[in-house]
Amino acid sequence: MHRSRIGVFLIDHPEESYDGAAGFWAAATGSERSRSATPPGDDPYESLAPLAGGELLELQRTGGGTPPRIHLDLETDDVAAEVARVVGLGASVVEERDGYTILADPGGMVFCVVPVQSGDHFARHARTWR
Amino acid sequence: MHRSRIGVFLIDHPEESYDGAAGFWAAATGSERSRSATPPGDDPYESLAPLAGGELLELQRTGGGTPPRIHLDLETDDVAAEVARVVGLGASVVEERDGYTILADPGGMVFCVVPVQSGDHFARHARTWR
Repeated sequence: MHRSRIGVFLIDHPEESYDGAAGFWAAATGSERSRSATPPGDDPYESLAPLAGGELLELQRTGGGTPPRIHLDLETDDVAAEVARVVGLGASVVEERDGYTILADPGGMVFCVVPVQSGDHFARHARTWR
Repeated sequence: MHRSRIGVFLIDHPEESYDGAAGFWAAATGSERSRSATPPGDDPYESLAPLAGGELLELQRTGGGTPPRIHLDLETDDVAAEVARVVGLGASVVEERDGYTILADPGGMVFCVVPVQSGDHFARHARTWR
């Protein structure tokens, strides 16, 4: 038995458009950026204010020349079990990373399975899979 | 004075991969599809269960050959005022449709400004802009 839910939405922009897009989305959502516009070195993430149900809204600086996109993360208390569940539903594993897994849905759209990100919100809102 | 918030996340897939992806996301989120897998004629949308804060999670059947993606909608009680606000922040208008507007953020990522979709959740959670 394990639990999961959609826990994170990430707005991904390549380095050349990242700062403009990050500033835009912070202002558009009325949120403080969690860091300055200074390039973050090896941490490509920053957080905007979470959604009403605690789902995280994040910005990710991706590699030069990559297309901007939104991707989502399924957060779970058992990454291996959740990966097995969604692979059984038709997803395919793209890459296993340290602590999380990158997958693609049956139409090729990338998403991730990650550990719990939203704390008490996860406990209140996640689905249980048996 | 008007209000807005991120109100809808849409998983867009072209017709050739739509049904497989729609079935996958319904099962992955433990949600009922709001229609059968039959092509919907002129209505390209169906709904999955909303997020915990009432934000809608929808599936859209897009044109053949288009890439799968997620896009978001800002929901608002004044579409014209919200479009003007986000254009002032650096967005550009892609196309004005009947009742809503398609825009791109400063990095070229598409999003929409749409009328209120989430009812009481909008009233509780939207930001006010003066």
